[in-house]
Amino acid sequence: MSNNTSSVTLEQLASLCKRRGFIFQSSEIYGGINGFWDYGPLGVELKRNIKDAWWQDTVQRRDDVVGLDASIIMHPRVWEASGHLEGFSDPMVDCKTCKGRFRADQLETTACPQKPSKKVGACGGDLTEPRQFNLMFKTFVGPVQDDSSVAYLRPETAQGIFAQFDNVLSVSRQKVPFGIAQIGKAFRNEINPRNYTFRSREFEQMELEFFIPPGTDAEWHEYWVKERLAWYSRIGLAQEHLDKYVYGKDELAHYASACVDIMYQFPFGLQELEGIAARGDFDLSRHSEYSGKKLEYYNQETNERFIPHVVEPSAGVDRIALAVLCEAYRMEWIPKEGTDGDIREAEPGEKLPAGYEERTVLRFEPIIAPIKAAVFPLLKNRPELVDTAKGLYRDLQRRWPVFYDQGGAIGRRYRRQDEAGTPFGITVDFQTLEDQTVTWRERDSMQQIRVPIAEVADRLMDALA
Amino acid sequence: MSNNTSSVTLEQLASLCKRRGFIFQSSEIYGGINGFWDYGPLGVELKRNIKDAWWQDTVQRRDDVVGLDASIIMHPRVWEASGHLEGFSDPMVDCKTCKGRFRADQLETTACPQKPSKKVGACGGDLTEPRQFNLMFKTFVGPVQDDSSVAYLRPETAQGIFAQFDNVLSVSRQKVPFGIAQIGKAFRNEINPRNYTFRSREFEQMELEFFIPPGTDAEWHEYWVKERLAWYSRIGLAQEHLDKYVYGKDELAHYASACVDIMYQFPFGLQELEGIAARGDFDLSRHSEYSGKKLEYYNQETNERFIPHVVEPSAGVDRIALAVLCEAYRMEWIPKEGTDGDIREAEPGEKLPAGYEERTVLRFEPIIAPIKAAVFPLLKNRPELVDTAKGLYRDLQRRWPVFYDQGGAIGRRYRRQDEAGTPFGITVDFQTLEDQTVTWRERDSMQQIRVPIAEVADRLMDALA
Repeated sequence: MSNNTSSVTLEQLASLCKRRGFIFQSSEIYGGINGFWDYGPLGVELKRNIKDAWWQDTVQRRDDVVGLDASIIMHPRVWEASGHLEGFSDPMVDCKTCKGRFRADQLETTACPQKPSKKVGACGGDLTEPRQFNLMFKTFVGPVQDDSSVAYLRPETAQGIFAQFDNVLSVSRQKVPFGIAQIGKAFRNEINPRNYTFRSREFEQMELEFFIPPGTDAEWHEYWVKERLAWYSRIGLAQEHLDKYVYGKDELAHYASACVDIMYQFPFGLQELEGIAARGDFDLSRHSEYSGKKLEYYNQETNERFIPHVVEPSAGVDRIALAVLCEAYRMEWIPKEGTDGDIREAEPGEKLPAGYEERTVLRFEPIIAPIKAAVFPLLKNRPELVDTAKGLYRDLQRRWPVFYDQGGAIGRRYRRQDEAGTPFGITVDFQTLEDQTVTWRERDSMQQIRVPIAEVADRLMDALA
Repeated sequence: MSNNTSSVTLEQLASLCKRRGFIFQSSEIYGGINGFWDYGPLGVELKRNIKDAWWQDTVQRRDDVVGLDASIIMHPRVWEASGHLEGFSDPMVDCKTCKGRFRADQLETTACPQKPSKKVGACGGDLTEPRQFNLMFKTFVGPVQDDSSVAYLRPETAQGIFAQFDNVLSVSRQKVPFGIAQIGKAFRNEINPRNYTFRSREFEQMELEFFIPPGTDAEWHEYWVKERLAWYSRIGLAQEHLDKYVYGKDELAHYASACVDIMYQFPFGLQELEGIAARGDFDLSRHSEYSGKKLEYYNQETNERFIPHVVEPSAGVDRIALAVLCEAYRMEWIPKEGTDGDIREAEPGEKLPAGYEERTVLRFEPIIAPIKAAVFPLLKNRPELVDTAKGLYRDLQRRWPVFYDQGGAIGRRYRRQDEAGTPFGITVDFQTLEDQTVTWRERDSMQQIRVPIAEVADRLMDALA
């Protein structure tokens, strides 16, 4: 796989995302809050589509996976059993002079708040010994705020699945191997949120715990790595921008037999989208130990009783949304209307050739695109065009998110939809009134063909299958 | 509207919900955590369907509403501006003897923890003066836990919309009147969670803020009350189990001009599903004041600049899920196979008539049902039946959540799907092999008709439109 860096910078992307309503800084009118992000009108649809595609492929279209939606706040014993209370922490030091708090393992690259050009401690301050800082957000449940009422915002959705393993097993009539899938928010009090939405403090996960017979760990791990890599192609990430990071034996947690990260070539480097770990029976065993409840599977055919092992593909929705945006973003030179020529990717520093104009386009896969099609009357002051266009729009709107736009030159309207990543533009023009066909324009190729108006919905359905 | 109480008790419903995997107690293996609930394999699909139906009707199929997905943790100034920091609280008293903490406004009905048959204070303890207890869950963001890092879990999603009003307005090309819609989790540290999932500490909201020109409040409020009432019919709540509670002038918040609660006849009484409030310009004005940012709308046609007023339909997903379950639940007497007779609702105390058997059924609307159809081969040991049934199942599974079941007598398989609320059962039998038709059984009427196998998908699509 190649190491090509994406041509978009994070600044370009963040600017488009704000301007077109994909992503806003949380609480921006109050100066923002570090590590929290909001999704605007286009962003919320993009994220919905990613989650729906995952749910469809991971739950609905499989016979061996069922869903779950567990609460964000759970009994605190869950985090004792999982090991998060003890071990989910970063080492921190305090500066005795400026009272700043810093990650002990990042001191070499962290600036002193008093003298930003120098390293931590440049204010003359001594640093304390490193102490462990737990990354779970803490809160209190009930009217009394003391040790007995402490609870945590889950730092991952996975533990909700393990805690409900027995209930789900007993209601779902599933047999091992089978999986439980969940989508939901998780929270980590990161010391240093960074890279736009990539490392934030509030984020959404899509996690699958796939329970298997002990001893089949290696084959099922391999199966899920392959499945998940293929899935990223389905939502439009190019294989050459994806990579695998295979953990060495010395990098694995003591209970894990294998772990592979699926990496994406972001503008800020090759970074993790999803981790796929073979975790053995660690989680179920620990919850069994801490709860005193047996968390086992009984195989009726072989008369065996065992604690299933688990393979866990764990993906971040926000990271996938960011990867999809990076992948889709293009600055292109396109031939002006009425001019011949090919679409070219704009080269930094090169001058716009004669007869060309620039466009920004988001080349989303249709299933991921926030808006599936835009419908235009060629002219807004011709009622027969407007009525036909609106009729088609209403019809499509029953089934998909579509957009109607009658304002401005048709070329400008196409450009606006290119920037929103809308894959198809459908224009009602004078020929429509004669032969009941419309212009069907494809965003990526900019090719225009005539399509009978009666076939538009089927064509769209095929593109979204 | 009638005041008929639903025939199901909360205990019956909770038992079915646990047994069939709709709802589990959160962290059950650790003894549970009061006020938190998990949704199992059927429950998560039910909730998804409710949310999707709302999003489709409120956002996708309207031209004047766009979506948003704001973070749960926001800048704490948001809650100063909204008034939640100061005013979102219950009065509490402490018992000086037993140290219990109780709601001051519920002392008459609260038992003393020491002497449960008596009222609070029966342990001989004096009670403190009432103090205000804020219902927002508090946490700390960043490495230091002090006043400067306090943040809150949002007690409603609405404020995220107000805080992003200006960004959304500028990217969406919407004109007032228009709305911003959001679905997401919210948290309230209720002193006394109760009535199963009805009043819980973690819950999901579907909120719309519909921004309007000042002076149009009454008509838009009326419009949304009507729209929202009609929506509840669409998802299957009978009009006779719904009611409106119209707030008197003296019950309204000082900034509100109208408020109507949509109520549902739960087993525990008539209770709120959704509140629809005309909130004037209170929220935008406060955020403008606290942030120093103008939150206005400029009407280009009239050259007017104003702070929009807002009408807010605010619904609870968990409450709606609970209402839908109560509405759908029936204990019925049905004629045994090969016997004539009508389906009757089981009367408490009455004896099962001869020739009848009992069934539990969830009469969900098809769009809300977790599983849309179940496919059965009549016999599992006849490969030609199994192959045809599996082929049909695979075909339907591409598009909808469907279920395949070949185990046990066909009547038993129907019964299991009745209990899960699956609206259609499709059986491949010997006639299928001759004429390519299947038995299409409707859950509610139990009527069975022959349908060509090639028409099954279209029939299902029509039922879900």
